[in-house]
Amino acid sequence: MFEFNLLAKQGRARRGVFNTPHGELQTPVFAPVGTQATVKTLTPDHVRELGASLVLSNTYHLYLRPGDELVAEMGGLHKFMQWHGPMLTDSGGFQVFSLALTRKIDEDGVTFKSHIDGSTHRFTPEKSIAIQENLGADIIMAFDECSDPNDRAYTIKAMQRTHRWAERSLLAHTRADQALFGIVQGGVDPQLRATSAEFISAMPFPGIAIGGLSVGETKQEMHDTLDIVCPLLPENKPRYLMGVGTPEDLINGIARGVDIFDCVLPTRLARHHAAFSSTGRLNLMNATFKHDQRPIDEQCDCYTCRTFTRAYIRHLINARELLAGTLISIHNLRALIRLVEDIRGYIAEGSFESRIPALLEQWDNNAQRKKSGN
Amino acid sequence: MFEFNLLAKQGRARRGVFNTPHGELQTPVFAPVGTQATVKTLTPDHVRELGASLVLSNTYHLYLRPGDELVAEMGGLHKFMQWHGPMLTDSGGFQVFSLALTRKIDEDGVTFKSHIDGSTHRFTPEKSIAIQENLGADIIMAFDECSDPNDRAYTIKAMQRTHRWAERSLLAHTRADQALFGIVQGGVDPQLRATSAEFISAMPFPGIAIGGLSVGETKQEMHDTLDIVCPLLPENKPRYLMGVGTPEDLINGIARGVDIFDCVLPTRLARHHAAFSSTGRLNLMNATFKHDQRPIDEQCDCYTCRTFTRAYIRHLINARELLAGTLISIHNLRALIRLVEDIRGYIAEGSFESRIPALLEQWDNNAQRKKSGN
Repeated sequence: MFEFNLLAKQGRARRGVFNTPHGELQTPVFAPVGTQATVKTLTPDHVRELGASLVLSNTYHLYLRPGDELVAEMGGLHKFMQWHGPMLTDSGGFQVFSLALTRKIDEDGVTFKSHIDGSTHRFTPEKSIAIQENLGADIIMAFDECSDPNDRAYTIKAMQRTHRWAERSLLAHTRADQALFGIVQGGVDPQLRATSAEFISAMPFPGIAIGGLSVGETKQEMHDTLDIVCPLLPENKPRYLMGVGTPEDLINGIARGVDIFDCVLPTRLARHHAAFSSTGRLNLMNATFKHDQRPIDEQCDCYTCRTFTRAYIRHLINARELLAGTLISIHNLRALIRLVEDIRGYIAEGSFESRIPALLEQWDNNAQRKKSGN
Repeated sequence: MFEFNLLAKQGRARRGVFNTPHGELQTPVFAPVGTQATVKTLTPDHVRELGASLVLSNTYHLYLRPGDELVAEMGGLHKFMQWHGPMLTDSGGFQVFSLALTRKIDEDGVTFKSHIDGSTHRFTPEKSIAIQENLGADIIMAFDECSDPNDRAYTIKAMQRTHRWAERSLLAHTRADQALFGIVQGGVDPQLRATSAEFISAMPFPGIAIGGLSVGETKQEMHDTLDIVCPLLPENKPRYLMGVGTPEDLINGIARGVDIFDCVLPTRLARHHAAFSSTGRLNLMNATFKHDQRPIDEQCDCYTCRTFTRAYIRHLINARELLAGTLISIHNLRALIRLVEDIRGYIAEGSFESRIPALLEQWDNNAQRKKSGN
């Protein structure tokens, strides 16, 4: 169980397979986010049909609602939400720091107030692991402390506590059918990141996550951090870059040696009527599309693009029909999953490195169109 | 085209087949409503998979948004919304009277203000038919005037105008691939209903609709009206009871000779978390269901019941996840379509009449549970 086999490498990019109790994960992989035990607006059949292999769900949200004990009573998260492929839960650490109404950190853990009803709760490394064992995902995370990357003194303190909490998470973990990943912290400080990468790599985790990125740092800082961290991580363990997943980030992350990604971006953009396309990011509410009989992306093989016109989707948006969000979510998730599928093929055939400039240009083009408001 | 063949009769209940350019309709049939060119929260694949054969869409809504000319330019309503089975559009008459901000009726037509933006528009019988020809449904409706059933003088006037508008609708209608149905009006007055039934029956419509019911009259008045109207209608034409579709209404309507029904109830209830079940109507937000591992209805064969527990659906409702509405809509529509499928079998085997008391008791049971708040 949890064997990771590298099938191909090109530069630092890796093509691998990670074995989980709910099936093999072909890496690199992009995971849709199902925060509250559902990928928003999609049935699990939709998620499977668009090619997703790994789904992430959030420990903080599920602990608060419906409660991890209820999920356990219902047979675990896979059965509860009827997703029968590999699943991953985070530790709740990031959400406690970003969503809870208040939080008070001490050496033992964090006391916080729920963003739902203001009620008081406490997470410790042991509690986070116990919740994640109740939820029953295939991949679970050590409890960590995020820091403000602009506050170096605090970043050091948070990193050191994350290391101590990683040890406690390992000790607390009991289920052999769950892979517990350690998390590298250290903000955007090269020295701290190197220290953390070495510390976490020395522990018997079957996989390593890189936390604390995509939290306000520049793209250059993200790339520099990956350039420092990835070479220090063991070759034979999968690497998971948490919460990161613009198309450019996927390309740049894979090129630097990352294997697993997740991001709410595709479904969040969909709720704001924005769609990825191979000719730029589109806002489908735009009047330009009123008479447009083309699919969102003529290159795309998703259900939405095989079936519906831009004109129809624009009508649904204007008429405030929820089906619009469903259809654009299917498309956006498929776009990122197809990008990663393509890159897996490129790594296997040895063409990824030479294709990076073209891939980035394509997705930079998107960024430029986004700037111009199209 | 538009041949209607009666396969079986039992009492006044009829089992038939109506041929349309987009396939055969097995009758009795219940049509989900796709007001704005979508059955709310469902993909057309969902609608097909739950066994729907006929989908209704609303002329008033589509005329205002996205516009019938745009739909025509996109290849018609079937192609626009990707529903490739039989479709029906209403005339817009009822919506002008129930939804428009203001309306002014004259002999020629109705001037009204849009409920969307207050803009002024005018429908005449000729305009309603032209819009419906642009939309391109298989079954379209004559333009009619609804009246207040409590105002007999106005009901007479509206009925007489409906008859003149029926003649103008017939004259205006040009597309041989669309079946134009006439509409019987006359409120709840037996004499007026008989007059209208005879008048509309004498015209060369391939099907007859019964309008102006389910607008505030009692169930007894609805049944009495059907008892007067149906025996006066030609045997060899399908009969469509507009906008009616509680389970009890379907049973009672079919028993009185109705072939086609439509209603927003299944999808509207779903948005309010209420589900049909063979043991009563359920509000799935209820705390009773927190730990309930059963499907909504153990007798049901829909995707939702084959896949998810009440506890999961209750969680989705509490977490304000839109998937709840999708899953309950699938179930509620399937419940009514399965009821009608069952009744088709009962009529064919000659057991419908003897089953009516049990069927009504089952659905009366629902009404009682609803009263008791379960």
